[in-house]
Amino acid sequence: MKNILVEKINNVPIEEQKVEIVERKGIGHPDSLSDGIAEAVSRALCKEYLRKADAVFHHNTDETQIVAGRAIPEMGGGEVISPIYILLVGRATKSFNDISFATDTLALKTARDYIREHFNNLDVESQVAIDCRIGEGSSDLKDVFASKSVPKSNDTSFGVGHAPFSETEKITYEIERNLYNTLRNKEPSIGEDIKVMGLRDGEDIMITISNAIIGRYIDDMEGYKEVKEKIKDFAMGVARRHTERSLDIQVNTADNYDNGEIFLTVTGTSAENGDDGSVGRGNRCNGLITPCRPMSMEATSGKNPINHIGKIYNLLSTQMAREIAEKVDGVQEVYIKILSQIGQPIDDPKAVSTQVIPKTGNEVKSLEPDIKAVVEDWLDNIIKIREMVIAGKLDTF
Amino acid sequence: MKNILVEKINNVPIEEQKVEIVERKGIGHPDSLSDGIAEAVSRALCKEYLRKADAVFHHNTDETQIVAGRAIPEMGGGEVISPIYILLVGRATKSFNDISFATDTLALKTARDYIREHFNNLDVESQVAIDCRIGEGSSDLKDVFASKSVPKSNDTSFGVGHAPFSETEKITYEIERNLYNTLRNKEPSIGEDIKVMGLRDGEDIMITISNAIIGRYIDDMEGYKEVKEKIKDFAMGVARRHTERSLDIQVNTADNYDNGEIFLTVTGTSAENGDDGSVGRGNRCNGLITPCRPMSMEATSGKNPINHIGKIYNLLSTQMAREIAEKVDGVQEVYIKILSQIGQPIDDPKAVSTQVIPKTGNEVKSLEPDIKAVVEDWLDNIIKIREMVIAGKLDTF
Amino acid sequence: MKNILVEKINNVPIEEQKVEIVERKGIGHPDSLSDGIAEAVSRALCKEYLRKADAVFHHNTDETQIVAGRAIPEMGGGEVISPIYILLVGRATKSFNDISFATDTLALKTARDYIREHFNNLDVESQVAIDCRIGEGSSDLKDVFASKSVPKSNDTSFGVGHAPFSETEKITYEIERNLYNTLRNKEPSIGEDIKVMGLRDGEDIMITISNAIIGRYIDDMEGYKEVKEKIKDFAMGVARRHTERSLDIQVNTADNYDNGEIFLTVTGTSAENGDDGSVGRGNRCNGLITPCRPMSMEATSGKNPINHIGKIYNLLSTQMAREIAEKVDGVQEVYIKILSQIGQPIDDPKAVSTQVIPKTGNEVKSLEPDIKAVVEDWLDNIIKIREMVIAGKLDTF
Amino acid sequence: MKNILVEKINNVPIEEQKVEIVERKGIGHPDSLSDGIAEAVSRALCKEYLRKADAVFHHNTDETQIVAGRAIPEMGGGEVISPIYILLVGRATKSFNDISFATDTLALKTARDYIREHFNNLDVESQVAIDCRIGEGSSDLKDVFASKSVPKSNDTSFGVGHAPFSETEKITYEIERNLYNTLRNKEPSIGEDIKVMGLRDGEDIMITISNAIIGRYIDDMEGYKEVKEKIKDFAMGVARRHTERSLDIQVNTADNYDNGEIFLTVTGTSAENGDDGSVGRGNRCNGLITPCRPMSMEATSGKNPINHIGKIYNLLSTQMAREIAEKVDGVQEVYIKILSQIGQPIDDPKAVSTQVIPKTGNEVKSLEPDIKAVVEDWLDNIIKIREMVIAGKLDTF
Repeated sequence: MKNILVEKINNVPIEEQKVEIVERKGIGHPDSLSDGIAEAVSRALCKEYLRKADAVFHHNTDETQIVAGRAIPEMGGGEVISPIYILLVGRATKSFNDISFATDTLALKTARDYIREHFNNLDVESQVAIDCRIGEGSSDLKDVFASKSVPKSNDTSFGVGHAPFSETEKITYEIERNLYNTLRNKEPSIGEDIKVMGLRDGEDIMITISNAIIGRYIDDMEGYKEVKEKIKDFAMGVARRHTERSLDIQVNTADNYDNGEIFLTVTGTSAENGDDGSVGRGNRCNGLITPCRPMSMEATSGKNPINHIGKIYNLLSTQMAREIAEKVDGVQEVYIKILSQIGQPIDDPKAVSTQVIPKTGNEVKSLEPDIKAVVEDWLDNIIKIREMVIAGKLDTF
Repeated sequence: MKNILVEKINNVPIEEQKVEIVERKGIGHPDSLSDGIAEAVSRALCKEYLRKADAVFHHNTDETQIVAGRAIPEMGGGEVISPIYILLVGRATKSFNDISFATDTLALKTARDYIREHFNNLDVESQVAIDCRIGEGSSDLKDVFASKSVPKSNDTSFGVGHAPFSETEKITYEIERNLYNTLRNKEPSIGEDIKVMGLRDGEDIMITISNAIIGRYIDDMEGYKEVKEKIKDFAMGVARRHTERSLDIQVNTADNYDNGEIFLTVTGTSAENGDDGSVGRGNRCNGLITPCRPMSMEATSGKNPINHIGKIYNLLSTQMAREIAEKVDGVQEVYIKILSQIGQPIDDPKAVSTQVIPKTGNEVKSLEPDIKAVVEDWLDNIIKIREMVIAGKLDTF
Repeated sequence: MKNILVEKINNVPIEEQKVEIVERKGIGHPDSLSDGIAEAVSRALCKEYLRKADAVFHHNTDETQIVAGRAIPEMGGGEVISPIYILLVGRATKSFNDISFATDTLALKTARDYIREHFNNLDVESQVAIDCRIGEGSSDLKDVFASKSVPKSNDTSFGVGHAPFSETEKITYEIERNLYNTLRNKEPSIGEDIKVMGLRDGEDIMITISNAIIGRYIDDMEGYKEVKEKIKDFAMGVARRHTERSLDIQVNTADNYDNGEIFLTVTGTSAENGDDGSVGRGNRCNGLITPCRPMSMEATSGKNPINHIGKIYNLLSTQMAREIAEKVDGVQEVYIKILSQIGQPIDDPKAVSTQVIPKTGNEVKSLEPDIKAVVEDWLDNIIKIREMVIAGKLDTF
Repeated sequence: MKNILVEKINNVPIEEQKVEIVERKGIGHPDSLSDGIAEAVSRALCKEYLRKADAVFHHNTDETQIVAGRAIPEMGGGEVISPIYILLVGRATKSFNDISFATDTLALKTARDYIREHFNNLDVESQVAIDCRIGEGSSDLKDVFASKSVPKSNDTSFGVGHAPFSETEKITYEIERNLYNTLRNKEPSIGEDIKVMGLRDGEDIMITISNAIIGRYIDDMEGYKEVKEKIKDFAMGVARRHTERSLDIQVNTADNYDNGEIFLTVTGTSAENGDDGSVGRGNRCNGLITPCRPMSMEATSGKNPINHIGKIYNLLSTQMAREIAEKVDGVQEVYIKILSQIGQPIDDPKAVSTQVIPKTGNEVKSLEPDIKAVVEDWLDNIIKIREMVIAGKLDTF
């Protein structure tokens, strides 16, 4: 019998708390760029290991360091003077039995491809220098990883997840996603570096968007202001779909038109000029930073999806919470914490703590069987997390 | 009038919650080593700026990346084959008017000194290679920093703090502090890389200590086991001072005596062999990782203490919370959130939200004046935070 | 009057000396790759300076360091495990008045383009990591460089040149040039890394060719041997056009078929696996290493073509010698040495020493006017050297 | 019977040639610093291999790259703003059978120690950042190196040497040696970066000394001029011991007192500000650059002394030439060329060519037995070269 606890908690539901703070660092933020590369490299290694040896070997590529370049943005153009420097750091299994794996070469190519795919105006040929210091992973672990059975926990650690998103969370998340996926395709001056900060003060939601604007598509300050207006209007449209509260949206609030200090870039990311980036300092694996909710400090991106318990349990608890919130009527909010016990199979955690705020008129007791069923089902199919990660179906930031 | 909110919250007090998880990464953990260097470099820059120009200029040195070395630990000896590589990353003001600042040289020296001071067995001459890629900070900011008035917020951000520590928090924190400061001086085989994980499950507190043991001071497996016993006994003594709950303490639980896989090192830190490290991925500025409490993702270490609002407000809210918990009778728990408004003086935040769980028999209303007094006093003297940071009197991790 | 000395020397003509040693490192040799990138970057900087500011500013990019990768070559395939690391080093003017130059970005792109252009099987996307540490050049020099007058010598230095090539020199040079330019296009397994060593012992010329063979185009050892045979036959054809002496040509003499150690590569260059490379350690600017002739140690590649006297005088003396040997009947061999005087215009060297071995029946005295005319003409048009360098019309290695 | 050729050559003796050019880059010149570190690291590896495994294993550490720092020198002080960056590059055997060698750690420590030992004012703690990218050497070679028999040639290559030094060569060499070893100890402002260029034009010898002066020991321009005077006088004294020709000595000829551009440094080497350095681009293994004499392009420093034929034969031919010039009466000048044959024992070269200019009244024929005896003796004891290298008794630059 697995140790699954379901309990009611008395906390004030998030929507009723007085203040709520939420943040999302978009795809092109330097920290997210680190996350994205780290995770892409891990995925590529997994696939290469599977291709050559039908097993995923030990690796953790979760320490990509981005050192900002130097750029001189200009309306109608601008130049990157010194390239962004990206150092790929981590551990990987470089050989197993007679098989060698071209880990560093693959990491380099993956990082380059990742940037090409996710940025429209960042030139990998000239504006980014990538170096690689991926060490040999511990050889003790090789056999462990080659095994087909459910792996054992690599650490005493935990994962946390919650669902559903509050209005402010949804809005913060969706604004970035829609700016990146939709408006950016229509308005080329919109850079990939977008940060959205959501603050709910009672019934007022204030959204602050920080969006890198790309100089070459802008003629003058009027044009810049127009793009900001477009972003604001578009974001308002997105936000309005998720709330009836009062909404205030501001874009690039630090702009100072008088002295010309505006958020103008050459490439669409502030990594071009002064903003460094690291893995694990941005969004949690649900895509948000939510100081009002339980969070894990564990960097999820770049960790191996086989036995890195921090990664797996964070992803797992988020999936569990979302499925419970969706499928189990009567659940208003659910918080999952999964604790590992080092050396035990990962499908048998020390404890799964499920804290529920039921909807008015519901008793946790009566919801418990359905909740447990979801938790058990995920534990029984924990390998699915790994498969989804490798297939790129689970976001990690 | 500053916007200071004091409200009661209904949350279950931490000690009454069913499960509590706390973690501390000690001084010698690769992530803490990154934090420590980052903050030491920032402090050194502050002092140099003050010495030469009587002002602290813009800088952020919060991206130190540690790339693990390769070592072959052995009882009675062992060797580091490849040095740990440390890349100092960040931004600094390299000149102001006619004054040049030897930022990179200073950063290099500071990092080397920091390691010497905090590790007994890590040889900076041969086992660590340090490189520096600190770029020129934005020149626009120079004048801002030279000014003597209260600086303006550099971002829309926030800080969080809570007090007092729960038993599990105290124990987790104090075990590492005492191992590092006391037992390590008596027992030379105790390495600086100590991670303490505290888990409270109802009335049972389980502490897992992961402590790098230094091979040269150990003769054989018996010796190794003896040191683990010493650590356990010592930790039990420390823990017992803070709780009457049941205590279970385990040391280096991943050890496998059969195949000889134990936590043995040459230098006292796992950075020597496979464990990379980054700033901002370990302890929050109160010294702990507390997923059951509100946390900020902001890296505090290495940020400039002048106008970096994430750093300042995290430190400030922690100080406020501690002072309230200590001085205001009737407060059981207090949570502080301070929100900035970009462009406004940092002593005038958008809001200070003070959430209180009063002790039984107390009303928040009657505690409010004392609480507000503490908050206001800190806001009025916010410059003290900067001074304490520069003087090294505030921990950041 | 410029100080031009013409004298007869009694040396034994090169073809009559008993032993002659000549070497050429081909385009794909790691040292030549360094040279090639260094010079390409300098040319690109010159063009950019001219485009933006109508002047060529101070720079020297003559320190490209190549750190070999790690590869596992195989017949029919093979893989590069760790990429080749290339560090671009040097100095460049990054701004002049209000104009900024994107020096580092340009250097990075140029290096990548250079590799693409000169190698058929070296994948810049994954098999090469390029980093850039080009510092700011001395600002004192900026005005000097912006001036239109003949620049002044930057150093007390000299250049040397000789002509015509001996048979062994011609053969050594031409074999590599033809293998690279002709046979490589027909036989894809021929890598760009070709080293030719020519040794003449009296009337016997022995040529040793070391040529990286590319595994993916080779099925088995027989195929490998066939390619070596092709190279040998082809080289014999080239060599025979230049001599009637006895010829012995050997290819990849270090091959050991028994244990499988042959010169097989994935990419066509030994930089993929263990052979590092540096600027200035390979061919002199006439394309050869000729220990039996006067040589300068000065690295020509990557130096600025405006006032770097070592570069300019080495190229100039070689051009002078070649024109004299070609146009002045009666000259059997000519050696030119040009000495600078620091601070003097480069068209007014301290001395041009022209040492001549006349053909039998000729007096140096009577050749002197024609020789001097050539020397004077080149000095008068010394700017042509710069123009030819920038236009890529003068080889530097 | 070994192939030893002794022949007379008709060349004009060096002292009778019209023009002679000689150069020496002193210990503190960036190129020599690269050479020195490269060779020191190789020596340290040899000793460590011998200590642990009683054999010297394959390695070549001949690619140290120095990237200049940035400094602001001042009379009475000055500062290094950005440290000198030194990248240690090469190959080394990292394990043999069960023995691991701490190659990278050792290289790092050796480089640091080397700088401390050879510079009085270059602070390794803060002014130099050293990184290490020493790869694993080819494992095929391990057994070869463990063997005790005379190793086989690793390449088709050659070495050259000559003796005795001409007056200009002696003077050029000795001035640097004496400035470094003697005057520097009395006059602390004399930096280690000294370049001496010797030019003999008929009976006039002109010496140009370029010597970095250390600002902290100088009060003002008068003091600077005084030091230059001291250097000049001292050098004149040294030079006069070696010649009766006319002597002209100039120091720091590029100085411009009007605009304050003088050769002032903080540390004593121009690597602090703009002058990069590489192995193998400075002095040949006899300590000089002599374009009027046969030279090898091979970098001697950092190559392994076991089977790297370029290194061994360059050192060997120089030793042979010196002993012949010293011991065999009647020899005015001797030039040695030793050619290897790849795969043959190194004590059995393809040819040793000994070219002699006899003193007037001597026949080469009658000198031949004595000359051959010296050559044969050295060949028979070729292992002595290795031993002298490892013991640090043979200079390589």
